[in-house]
Amino acid sequence: MAGLGARSVLVTGTNRGIGLELVRQLLSSPDPPQHLFACSRQPDGENGQELRKLVSSHPNVTILKLDVTNPTTIKEAATYVEGHLKGSGLNVLINNAATFTDLSLEASGPEDMCNEYKTNVVGPLVVSQAFLPLLKKAAKDRSQKGLSCSRAAIINISSSMGSVELVSCSYMKPAVPYRCSKAALNMLTMCQSLSYKEDGILCSAVHPGWVKTDMGTQAADLTVNESVRGILHVLSKLDDGHSGLLVNWKGEKLPW
Amino acid sequence: MAGLGARSVLVTGTNRGIGLELVRQLLSSPDPPQHLFACSRQPDGENGQELRKLVSSHPNVTILKLDVTNPTTIKEAATYVEGHLKGSGLNVLINNAATFTDLSLEASGPEDMCNEYKTNVVGPLVVSQAFLPLLKKAAKDRSQKGLSCSRAAIINISSSMGSVELVSCSYMKPAVPYRCSKAALNMLTMCQSLSYKEDGILCSAVHPGWVKTDMGTQAADLTVNESVRGILHVLSKLDDGHSGLLVNWKGEKLPW
Repeated sequence: MAGLGARSVLVTGTNRGIGLELVRQLLSSPDPPQHLFACSRQPDGENGQELRKLVSSHPNVTILKLDVTNPTTIKEAATYVEGHLKGSGLNVLINNAATFTDLSLEASGPEDMCNEYKTNVVGPLVVSQAFLPLLKKAAKDRSQKGLSCSRAAIINISSSMGSVELVSCSYMKPAVPYRCSKAALNMLTMCQSLSYKEDGILCSAVHPGWVKTDMGTQAADLTVNESVRGILHVLSKLDDGHSGLLVNWKGEKLPW
Repeated sequence: MAGLGARSVLVTGTNRGIGLELVRQLLSSPDPPQHLFACSRQPDGENGQELRKLVSSHPNVTILKLDVTNPTTIKEAATYVEGHLKGSGLNVLINNAATFTDLSLEASGPEDMCNEYKTNVVGPLVVSQAFLPLLKKAAKDRSQKGLSCSRAAIINISSSMGSVELVSCSYMKPAVPYRCSKAALNMLTMCQSLSYKEDGILCSAVHPGWVKTDMGTQAADLTVNESVRGILHVLSKLDDGHSGLLVNWKGEKLPW
């Protein structure tokens, strides 16, 4: 399994699915991060049980409460991470937390549209803003010039369902609020890549495939293990040529 | 000037800019609509003065109060239009109302993101839902098979700034909330085109160019007259091959 070569990594939405598996595989990689921040909206109680169990024997992991729709929890998490890193930066921010509802055009109401947008687009924007100083610091501290996850990166977990070009391939699931939000997230990723290139921060969107999770259902064609293995391999290879792109878990570029 | 061949047309956001000019040019076209519904958030008072003056001598125009962020006003407008059309359908719905703020990544807050999304994406979705029965009726009433604005169409006024592919061409204006909303609107247009194709409704997104309006500022390179002349010419030519596309005021297909 490829390692990211990143000293510090933060992942949102880690109490299940792809987020939980990212934590699992990062911990068992040949070069696990010295500081892994596993964020979750509900780290306590039953929902966070599996995450807490996973990290209990790994002192390099910190579980943090972070609700991407709640700016206060985002700021508190950023303050904590800054203190914890004692003057060093954050190498990788993985905006993974997301919500999905498969609603048709007729069934999609204003609330559905706005809620999905808040979590899937505004969340990654605000989380990235909060951790930007630490990402810039990480980028500056590395002597290397090019962009990479071992230096500084914002990775937005997006979806091929946010590709306007590819809609007709998967329209048996209309999922209009989700598609609209992921198209916007792809746009956000492009804006981030252009804005933060000169700061040395790589910004890419990643499509994890259709994965057997609570979100993807058991009808999906990839196990979460396969998807995340692919994602981490792809992340380890990302460079200047990938910033501002949407790539899938196999590293293939997808159209917008 | 080309005519649309449409018996009835509804345009949102008509008290200024492109919306007002659409009304003006539709009225002076060789085949003006028998029923033109000019919708505005604030048809009364000073903001609606120019619109009211324009339509005062045209009995085929009805000014309607419609705020795209207020579902009640949308429903009321749809009920009125249905009654007014006395059993016939609505040929063309032009979702033109939109808002624009040129905010950088750092300056874009959750409120800015959500407000722009509500007006520019959720608005067109909910307005289209409300007028869908009338659009379906228009499509059914025409004996012609193909898609066209003379039969039934949803036209979403979008922007090249919503094209992820083209962002780097115009990033001197980051306008992150606007870009994200227009990328999502392009996605919505594609979903609408796939969902409503079998109902005989053409769905396209149109980029009006950079236009000298309150939104575009006087630094823009097109007059509103030139832009709208182009748009109406393009609309008159749209067919099955254009449904689900983003085209500019010259009829050129833009990338997503």
